[in-house]
Amino acid sequence: MIASIITIGDELLIGQTIDTNSAWMAQQLNALGLDVQRRVAVGDTREAIIEALDEELKRNDLVLITGGLGPTADDITKPLLAEYFGGSLVMNEQVRAHLIEIFSKRNRPMLERNMKQAEVPDCCTMLFNKLGTAPGMWFEKDGRTVVAMPGVPFEMIGIMQDEVLPRLRQMVIGQAIVHRSIVTVGEGESFIAESISDLESMLPPHIRLAFLPDAGMVKLRLTGRGSDELRLIKEVELRRDEIAERLKKCVVGLEDLPMEQILGKLLVSKGLMLGLAESCTGGYIAHRMTQIMGSAQFFSGSIVCYQESIKRDLLGVRRKTIENHTVVSEEVALEMAAGAIKTLNSDIGFGITGLLSGTSLENIPVGTVCMAVVYKEHSFSKRFQFHSDRIRNKELAVTHALLCIWKFIHNTL
Amino acid sequence: MIASIITIGDELLIGQTIDTNSAWMAQQLNALGLDVQRRVAVGDTREAIIEALDEELKRNDLVLITGGLGPTADDITKPLLAEYFGGSLVMNEQVRAHLIEIFSKRNRPMLERNMKQAEVPDCCTMLFNKLGTAPGMWFEKDGRTVVAMPGVPFEMIGIMQDEVLPRLRQMVIGQAIVHRSIVTVGEGESFIAESISDLESMLPPHIRLAFLPDAGMVKLRLTGRGSDELRLIKEVELRRDEIAERLKKCVVGLEDLPMEQILGKLLVSKGLMLGLAESCTGGYIAHRMTQIMGSAQFFSGSIVCYQESIKRDLLGVRRKTIENHTVVSEEVALEMAAGAIKTLNSDIGFGITGLLSGTSLENIPVGTVCMAVVYKEHSFSKRFQFHSDRIRNKELAVTHALLCIWKFIHNTL
Repeated sequence: MIASIITIGDELLIGQTIDTNSAWMAQQLNALGLDVQRRVAVGDTREAIIEALDEELKRNDLVLITGGLGPTADDITKPLLAEYFGGSLVMNEQVRAHLIEIFSKRNRPMLERNMKQAEVPDCCTMLFNKLGTAPGMWFEKDGRTVVAMPGVPFEMIGIMQDEVLPRLRQMVIGQAIVHRSIVTVGEGESFIAESISDLESMLPPHIRLAFLPDAGMVKLRLTGRGSDELRLIKEVELRRDEIAERLKKCVVGLEDLPMEQILGKLLVSKGLMLGLAESCTGGYIAHRMTQIMGSAQFFSGSIVCYQESIKRDLLGVRRKTIENHTVVSEEVALEMAAGAIKTLNSDIGFGITGLLSGTSLENIPVGTVCMAVVYKEHSFSKRFQFHSDRIRNKELAVTHALLCIWKFIHNTL
Repeated sequence: MIASIITIGDELLIGQTIDTNSAWMAQQLNALGLDVQRRVAVGDTREAIIEALDEELKRNDLVLITGGLGPTADDITKPLLAEYFGGSLVMNEQVRAHLIEIFSKRNRPMLERNMKQAEVPDCCTMLFNKLGTAPGMWFEKDGRTVVAMPGVPFEMIGIMQDEVLPRLRQMVIGQAIVHRSIVTVGEGESFIAESISDLESMLPPHIRLAFLPDAGMVKLRLTGRGSDELRLIKEVELRRDEIAERLKKCVVGLEDLPMEQILGKLLVSKGLMLGLAESCTGGYIAHRMTQIMGSAQFFSGSIVCYQESIKRDLLGVRRKTIENHTVVSEEVALEMAAGAIKTLNSDIGFGITGLLSGTSLENIPVGTVCMAVVYKEHSFSKRFQFHSDRIRNKELAVTHALLCIWKFIHNTL
């Protein structure tokens, strides 16, 4: 079974909204062994939606639609689908009761247009939306399936998990898809490709290799297809292990995890608490570390010191160090890291200071970032020069910060 | 002129990567008055790419392609485009010199497959990529234009800005598109739609209204189309002002800015420095505030206090307050906010503490978040109950935190 995803909404075409739904949906379908072949985004117009439906249904057995189900006038998908599948809208009592409950809980008046959200085409199975007001819809016609869901991400996720994925699981028989990843740091995509080119060319046709470069890292992904899932897993993992062995100098993990999670695991395994002193990254490293459930086990906290006085008063950076080396220097980063250990009572300290945007200061070019890690008598510091805008320089600084802490622990402890 | 965007890469179809390129490209095209009619994502296979190209070229005058231009074996777009437009690959000396320079700067050996990146189809205009190794390509055929660029976001942005947008600007004549926004907080989409339904129904056909709900806020967007840009701007702004006047109780701004920027502007206008004490949000509020260039003008810093001892030692939260009210309480949030003012030497302090995931603690249900703002003798605190997973609860906590600070300043100062 092959699927298409259609996302509806002018906001996607003028770039006001970034589409995170499609990626999540594709992951879920993939886990079931369903291939997503195309994703199409169209605007809130009748013609565009019908055209996209016609085309994708010609091509694939399953079409998932998100968006266009809200209570306002720019949302036209529901009546259009009713018409497309030859039905009409009728009041659904379960949805109506749910709506009344939601509005009374929120203490809001219920409007005519809200009540309209309880109308469902009589030619579909209603998919209950416990987290919102717009129900999902499951249509079947000529052996093809069309599922429509609201575009609000957590509502779509709720309906997928409760209603859509269990139904799809039942429908799917046969083909398994297995993904295995290798995460590497510090080498370029070409270098890695070259070092494993013989292994790549020996891959059987049902196993594909993809390279996914990211700031400072390259992820490799092996994708295998076959009917016998257990055998396929063994086969793909054998290939993965061969490649990982060849690349062992730069492999940080065999799971496609974010770098903060790879670092978190290492900290836990060493029984270390990490404390941060963040200037230019403004709390972003701390935010990333605390995305992980249970991060209190290895993360003490962060001093986001956006003013020089805080670096001195809270972290004990010496005025002299700043005068001699400027505030963006490895020396200041080292004192910040040492200060983070003391102030946050942690085992390992990390300090980062830089100039992400604006104009050069005291001979420090824009894009300069200095970072340092300290653990007992060990320390490491490094200066980087980035060349992009503020947002990307911050992103790069955080990626390199996480790598820097990981490498320091891995190599010295 | 109407455009399609094609993004190429298996990683987009299995959900490994979230597509941020399309949104950015659509914004840029829109600013030129170019409409994006469809966005299609396809995998790294010959058939899928050719099919998508055929279809979108049948439909639209301009097709922008990203992805599939890297040095590894999964990237097949370049030879395919050469063939599609009836040309062959030839070495481009400018790109070759650029590649040699990049590799010598990075002190890396240059491989055969890197050199291949300097090959460009002889039937296109090469678009120089100063930020990376893969050049962009500009093809023209039968009055249609196809532009191919690498998928790495900052490289794509560089090529768009330097090469593609100036060329498109030259090509565009005539129609203008004008967008104007209204940002509201605290009321639901239906309520807002109802209060302005008469104004909405009076809109002329060339001006459209869209509602974009987000956590705690609803953005309204008016889009006008016409030949006389200045007149169109006046017309759209008149409609916007009418609507904003009607909704004035919940309008926070007339620009489609992120909430942190709206808050930043308010802080600057009042001459206030903000200091944070973040427990459950783990530095995310600080990260958001420091995304803004020049945030040092209104942001002192944040104490990310992921351990109870830091709340006590650094922020002066009393042991008794924690014992009496538990660590997730408005009382603790108030003391954290007051502590942030002192420790970070700021004018206004904000504290936030909560339980985003895991299991309930001492009768605190998962999803409970308490926040407080303090300014001199004024203070405000509030308890929230969220119902989602860790990541979304954190997102919601930050949105409400920014709104809470904004409202406090707006209403009391």
